[in-house]
Amino acid sequence: MTIASFMPPNRTLMGPGPSDVSERVLSAMARPTLGHLDPAFVGMMDEVKLLLQMAFQTKNELTFAVSAPGSAGMECCFANLVECGDKVIICQNGVFGGRMKENVERMGGTAIMVMDDWGTAVDPQKLEEALVAHPDAALVAFVHAETSTGAQSDAKTLVELAHSHGCLTIVDAVTSLAGSPLKVDEWGIDAIYSGSQKCLSAPPGLSPVSFNQRAAEKIRNRGSRVQSWFLDLNLVMGYWGGEGKRAYHHTAPVNCLYGLHESLVIVQEEGLENSWARHQKNHLALRAGLQEMGIGFLVPEQDRLPQLNTVYIPDGVDDALVRTRLLNEFDLEIGAGLGALAGKVWRIGLMGHASNQKNVDYCLKSLQAVLDS
Amino acid sequence: MTIASFMPPNRTLMGPGPSDVSERVLSAMARPTLGHLDPAFVGMMDEVKLLLQMAFQTKNELTFAVSAPGSAGMECCFANLVECGDKVIICQNGVFGGRMKENVERMGGTAIMVMDDWGTAVDPQKLEEALVAHPDAALVAFVHAETSTGAQSDAKTLVELAHSHGCLTIVDAVTSLAGSPLKVDEWGIDAIYSGSQKCLSAPPGLSPVSFNQRAAEKIRNRGSRVQSWFLDLNLVMGYWGGEGKRAYHHTAPVNCLYGLHESLVIVQEEGLENSWARHQKNHLALRAGLQEMGIGFLVPEQDRLPQLNTVYIPDGVDDALVRTRLLNEFDLEIGAGLGALAGKVWRIGLMGHASNQKNVDYCLKSLQAVLDS
Repeated sequence: MTIASFMPPNRTLMGPGPSDVSERVLSAMARPTLGHLDPAFVGMMDEVKLLLQMAFQTKNELTFAVSAPGSAGMECCFANLVECGDKVIICQNGVFGGRMKENVERMGGTAIMVMDDWGTAVDPQKLEEALVAHPDAALVAFVHAETSTGAQSDAKTLVELAHSHGCLTIVDAVTSLAGSPLKVDEWGIDAIYSGSQKCLSAPPGLSPVSFNQRAAEKIRNRGSRVQSWFLDLNLVMGYWGGEGKRAYHHTAPVNCLYGLHESLVIVQEEGLENSWARHQKNHLALRAGLQEMGIGFLVPEQDRLPQLNTVYIPDGVDDALVRTRLLNEFDLEIGAGLGALAGKVWRIGLMGHASNQKNVDYCLKSLQAVLDS
Repeated sequence: MTIASFMPPNRTLMGPGPSDVSERVLSAMARPTLGHLDPAFVGMMDEVKLLLQMAFQTKNELTFAVSAPGSAGMECCFANLVECGDKVIICQNGVFGGRMKENVERMGGTAIMVMDDWGTAVDPQKLEEALVAHPDAALVAFVHAETSTGAQSDAKTLVELAHSHGCLTIVDAVTSLAGSPLKVDEWGIDAIYSGSQKCLSAPPGLSPVSFNQRAAEKIRNRGSRVQSWFLDLNLVMGYWGGEGKRAYHHTAPVNCLYGLHESLVIVQEEGLENSWARHQKNHLALRAGLQEMGIGFLVPEQDRLPQLNTVYIPDGVDDALVRTRLLNEFDLEIGAGLGALAGKVWRIGLMGHASNQKNVDYCLKSLQAVLDS
C-alpha cells in the first residue's frame, strides 16, 4: 500500500453545507500552528469571542466555539442544560428536531414532542398548548432554520411563549447564523448553537455556541454532573472564560479556529445586516430562475430560508443521476432530501461565501443543461 | 470594534503538543473544502483508515478519527465501552489517568484506582492485585505514554494481565502513536485513542481511535444506549464503516482530515519504524545536551518516552520567567508541569515533525542563553 497526497477537486458547494470556503479562510487555516495556551493564541480566542458576539447579536459572556462540529454543539447545549428527569418540549419540523429528542433521552430527560409537517414553520399555537399541558416542563427546544427542509420558524415568538411558562430555551441556529436575521439578546434566547460550515463559510469542525446568564446559572447549579467531561461547560468555562486566566481543559483545534476567526472578520467587514441582505437578494435571483424552469419550492414563501432552497424534483427526473452528473460534469454539489423527503426534493444552498450571483447563474445553467440532456 | 486578520508568530513547538506542523500538512489544510458525502472525500476517508491501521499496527476494521480532539477520543472509548454499573480498573500515574476516572464515573461506572507515582511506569504487580481483588471488573484502562510526565508503561504486559482476568482494555496512546513502538494487534489492545497533534504533527482537532472485534461486539450488544449521540459508535460506524455505504451522521471536519491524511502519508513515506528510531535518536541528543547542563530527568531511564522529556527545573530558577523568555525572545515553546509537578518540571517535546537535530540544538542553545542571563 502506498498512498499519495490527496488533491481534492475544486467543487462549487451549493448543498446544505459545507459551503464554499474562500481563499482568505483557507489561507488562514494554513498559518503556523500555535500552542493552545500561547498568549498569542489566547488573544485570538478573545477576538473569536467578540466576533461571535457580533454574529449572534449578543453580549453573552459565555460565547465561544465548541471544539467539534455542530452535532457536538447541540449535545453541548443539551448535556449541560438537561438533567436526569427533566421534561423538555421539542418542536419538531424536520430531521434535527428528531436529533434533539435523541439528545434529551440520552441525558435521562423526557422529550415532549410537538410535531409540525416537514417544510412548514413551527406552529406557536401548538407549542402553547404543550406548555399548558406540561406545566412542569423545564426547557423548550426548536430549530430556528431547519437544514433538512429550508423552513425558518419565528424564534422570537417561540422564545416568548417558553419564557411566559417559565421554560428556558435551546435554539438550533446551525443554518441561520450570519445568513438571515438572528438576534439572540433581543429575542431572549437562552442557549444557542450553530456550525462553522454554513453561512460563515469556514471549514466544518467547530460549533459556535452562546449561553445567557440564566442558562449559565442553571449549569452552575446543577444537582448532578454533566454526563460528558469533554462538553462540561463548568470545565470549558475555565478555558474560554473571561477572567484572563486560562485553565487547560482540552487542546483546542488551533488551525480550525484561525479559519473561523478569518470567516468572522469577513462577516464584520461586510456587515452582518449586509450579509443577511445579500443572502436574500441571491435567493430571489435563484427563485426567479427556478420558477422559469417550472421548479417549485417545498416551503411556503413566508417561511423560506434564503440560504437553503428546498425545491421539488420535477416529475420523472432521476434524483441521484442528476446530482451525480452535476458533480461529475460541473463540479457542482447540491444536496439530496433527507428522511421522508429523500428522492422528492433537492436542497440548494446559497450560504456565506457561496451566496453570489455567479453561483446562482452557474447552478441554474448547469441544472438546465443536465435536465435537457 | 474592528478586528483584523490574525497572523500568528512562527513558533518552534517543543512542548507536550501541539508539535510543529510541516508546510506540507499546512498546505493540505488549505485545499478546497469538499462536501462530507462527496465520493472524492469518502475515498480520502478510506485512505485515512488504511493509514491509521498502519500507524496503529492493526487490522481493526473500526479504525478512524473522531471528529474532535483527543479528550473526545478518550470519551468515545469510555462512553461506548462502559455501561452504568460497570467496574473499571484504572491504573493512574499522571493527569490523564485521573481524567479516565472522571469519564468512568460520568458514565455511571465505578472506578477502581491503582495508583503509581507520577513519573514512574504503571506497576503490573499492582494491576494484578487489583484484578484479583475485583473479579467482577469489566475493563482495565491505562495511559501508554503519560503526557503529563513523559513516562511510558508496558502496554503489552498490562493488556495480557487484563485479558487473563477477562477484562477488555482501553489504552491512551495520545503521545505514543508514531513516536515510539505501539503495536495494537500484537499487544492485543481492545480500544485505543490518540491525538492528531503529537507525533503525527497534524493540527489539533482529531482523535484517531481503533477498536478490535471484541470491543465492537461489546458496543453492538450494549444493554443501554450510549450516553452521547455524537460519539455513539453504533451510529458513527455507519459513516466511517467499511461497507462502501456512508450514512450521514455528522459533518466531518473536512480540512482537518486533509491535514491528518497528509501527516500519515509522511509517516508512511518515512516508515513507521524509522519514525520511532528518529524520535529515539533525537531524544538521546537532547539528553546528552541537558546532562551537560546539569539538568536531570524525572522519569527513570528505562521508562522514558523519547518524544516527551520531562526534566527538573534547576534550583533557584523561575519557571514561568524562563518559559516566557524562551517564547518571547526565541519563539520557542516548551511545556510547564501539570498538577503536582507544576513549577517543578519542564516538558520538552520532540514530537513528529519537531523531532530533529536542528530543534535539539536550538532548544539547548536557547535554554542555556536564558539560564545564563
